[in-house]
Amino acid sequence: MEHKASASVPFDRETVARIVREAGINLCTASIREMNRIVNEIEKELGVRFIRMEFGIPGLPPHPIAIEAEIEALREKGLAQHYAPFDGVPALKEEASRFAKLFLNLDFPPVACVPTVGAMQGCFVSLAVAGNVDPVKRTILFLDPGFPVNKQQCRFLGLETDRIDLYDHRGETLVRVLDERLARGDVAAVLWSSPNNPAWIILSEEELRGMAEAMERHGAIAIEDLAYFGMDFRKDYGKPGKPPYQPTIARYMNRCFVIVSSSKAFSYAGQRVAVTFISPQLLREESPHLEARHGTRTIGYAFIHGGIYPMTACIAEGPQHGLAALLKAVNDGAVPFLEDVKEYAKRAAAMKKAFLSNGFRLVYDNDLGEPLADGFYFTVSHPRFSEGWKLVAELLHYGVSAITLATAGSTRTEGLRACTSLTTLDMIPALEERLRKFHEDNP
Amino acid sequence: MEHKASASVPFDRETVARIVREAGINLCTASIREMNRIVNEIEKELGVRFIRMEFGIPGLPPHPIAIEAEIEALREKGLAQHYAPFDGVPALKEEASRFAKLFLNLDFPPVACVPTVGAMQGCFVSLAVAGNVDPVKRTILFLDPGFPVNKQQCRFLGLETDRIDLYDHRGETLVRVLDERLARGDVAAVLWSSPNNPAWIILSEEELRGMAEAMERHGAIAIEDLAYFGMDFRKDYGKPGKPPYQPTIARYMNRCFVIVSSSKAFSYAGQRVAVTFISPQLLREESPHLEARHGTRTIGYAFIHGGIYPMTACIAEGPQHGLAALLKAVNDGAVPFLEDVKEYAKRAAAMKKAFLSNGFRLVYDNDLGEPLADGFYFTVSHPRFSEGWKLVAELLHYGVSAITLATAGSTRTEGLRACTSLTTLDMIPALEERLRKFHEDNP
Repeated sequence: MEHKASASVPFDRETVARIVREAGINLCTASIREMNRIVNEIEKELGVRFIRMEFGIPGLPPHPIAIEAEIEALREKGLAQHYAPFDGVPALKEEASRFAKLFLNLDFPPVACVPTVGAMQGCFVSLAVAGNVDPVKRTILFLDPGFPVNKQQCRFLGLETDRIDLYDHRGETLVRVLDERLARGDVAAVLWSSPNNPAWIILSEEELRGMAEAMERHGAIAIEDLAYFGMDFRKDYGKPGKPPYQPTIARYMNRCFVIVSSSKAFSYAGQRVAVTFISPQLLREESPHLEARHGTRTIGYAFIHGGIYPMTACIAEGPQHGLAALLKAVNDGAVPFLEDVKEYAKRAAAMKKAFLSNGFRLVYDNDLGEPLADGFYFTVSHPRFSEGWKLVAELLHYGVSAITLATAGSTRTEGLRACTSLTTLDMIPALEERLRKFHEDNP
Repeated sequence: MEHKASASVPFDRETVARIVREAGINLCTASIREMNRIVNEIEKELGVRFIRMEFGIPGLPPHPIAIEAEIEALREKGLAQHYAPFDGVPALKEEASRFAKLFLNLDFPPVACVPTVGAMQGCFVSLAVAGNVDPVKRTILFLDPGFPVNKQQCRFLGLETDRIDLYDHRGETLVRVLDERLARGDVAAVLWSSPNNPAWIILSEEELRGMAEAMERHGAIAIEDLAYFGMDFRKDYGKPGKPPYQPTIARYMNRCFVIVSSSKAFSYAGQRVAVTFISPQLLREESPHLEARHGTRTIGYAFIHGGIYPMTACIAEGPQHGLAALLKAVNDGAVPFLEDVKEYAKRAAAMKKAFLSNGFRLVYDNDLGEPLADGFYFTVSHPRFSEGWKLVAELLHYGVSAITLATAGSTRTEGLRACTSLTTLDMIPALEERLRKFHEDNP
């Protein structure tokens, strides 16, 4: 299948309409998975290949150091026959601790560095534990837009959710509105990602300091999802032990879960291993209310023995050795891990250019007045489309797929989320061509 | 450290008392982990090595076919960079389906065979989904004794628990009492393991048929934990496609989760991969009440996309290829998997003999009037000790460690659970020697 676009777009409208109708999917609320199904079907029926921006899946090959370390561990350590330690393989905990020192300039001893089955489990357990610390605090406050599954986790756990949209709340406004919302006293934790999925705005040190003060004042725990660690490529966060350091809430408060995924920065999504850094003070904090759900009063114990353990017993040991070896190489300065993923930034720059020169706009279009960084996601809208789902539907005829910003919890329902991970640079001419045709048809 | 017993047991009472006191642990309710800590401390301080029966951890090496398949997948398939399919790697689903046909003589199509992060996640998600099908059914009924963590999972999920003890309820009595309990209408699911952890009694086909009828009558789902698949070594369940077949509730009802661990029968605990077989009918069953927690009405979809996905995204891909290759070899008849784990039965026979010839008794001492099978666990008591925790405490002075049956939810609070997994046959003489001394001191 080729990316020959101009000859074929827009695709036959009746065919596309029939496929959408037969899939029984409402484009207005279509999830990533549902969009994926429709696009697969159109690709198959029309023999075309889409520019797929709906998927937030990584696609760069992992570093061979990690793969070889897993293989060595499988061969040499007699892995599979024993359970891994419930709190994680010591080598991984130690390298994670070094990583925190070298790339965050913060002290998280190995006991505070807890491997999980991907950042997904790290978020799930953090939410569960935070939601059980105080029975009057059962709401998770999101800084939106965000990763839709975090809200799904809250539903699973029976937690309430509320949100503040970063579109019109940044800087002092963000801190003030956060403080006002927290003053209601029902918020157990505040969850966000920075760089933000999908707006790719990045909270500043001043915002983080103000947010930390507000959270400390009102007894809310921070759950900081550093899924895209270091991927604000406007700065170089990739030199071990040298400033600048990745901004983090942990610099300003002592009650946080900081979750570092290996999926994007380390291209290790498929082996499901991440690390949650727990503030040493939070690790030791006690609440009698944790007993009922987690069988202990202590947050750290609740996280590991009352959280990870009843969910999955432990984390597969092989992948832990793989990530440990990769972190060691990164910590030693032998692997410049952020250089490898700058590829996503190159794609974002080229893709944004193609959109902006064909009548589209960025929705989240600046970062505290500065240009946005280029990274894993960006957001677009088109002045002729006031509803995002209609734009998604129209773009389907031009071989370009995305999901609406509404599904990411954004108030900007005219926008779309675009992911750069599947659009390699050789596809950019096809994208440009398709968008140019779209522009002609929607002047 | 040596197993020289006669010279040193009983250990100095003041030292042991001090270690227990300093650990701050109540032997009456000590968990496996707490007992482990005390024993480690005594071993270190006295320079002795215990016969450790408290741990239910496997210890046999896994088959090299699985390890080599993982290595090949890491090398050849570019694994880590993509997420695995949310519903599992197709090769594993297909071999699991074949396994169900060849070793259970039942049809579970691949779509009904769902890999999870160990049987732990399989149980957790089964409990979560079963508990959300009907808002008036929020109780999980256990056939006890059992694996303590299943009750911890219910606490995590906010589910109620109740229990029927298999000690005085077998055969028709079990079915009648189960039917009476289910008639109260609050039971979402019944959970048990067979072979039973730790009594090693095995539910008969007649019991399973009667239980299925009772559960169908009262709308309860079955959660059958086949953690010790095929390990009733009185029969040979290990010949693919040939009777006898492992007894299972799935032969008698259409609403069950049947969870097959890879930890014991396949010695693959550390890589965290298991399979939950979901009745095809249950997979398609709908309940509007599932929406709130799992975002869908359909049980199968709730299990995968509303259960596994928000917990861990997916299951590490490497281990799935390892287990797929091993299941293929087992299905093809190339690996006689149950032969390898008969080692546990040999140990159980020798260990039981050592206990019974030194004044101990089996607590759960028969299987519907027949002798018990030898396997991974057995249960003991001593006529001079009416409380299990006192027996645990006394055995500590003889270099033998176990946990109480009370911690496994048994009504037989005089008993202990003994696991065979860490007592290799060369340790039997030391065990005999220690128990002989115990017997002399407690005639």
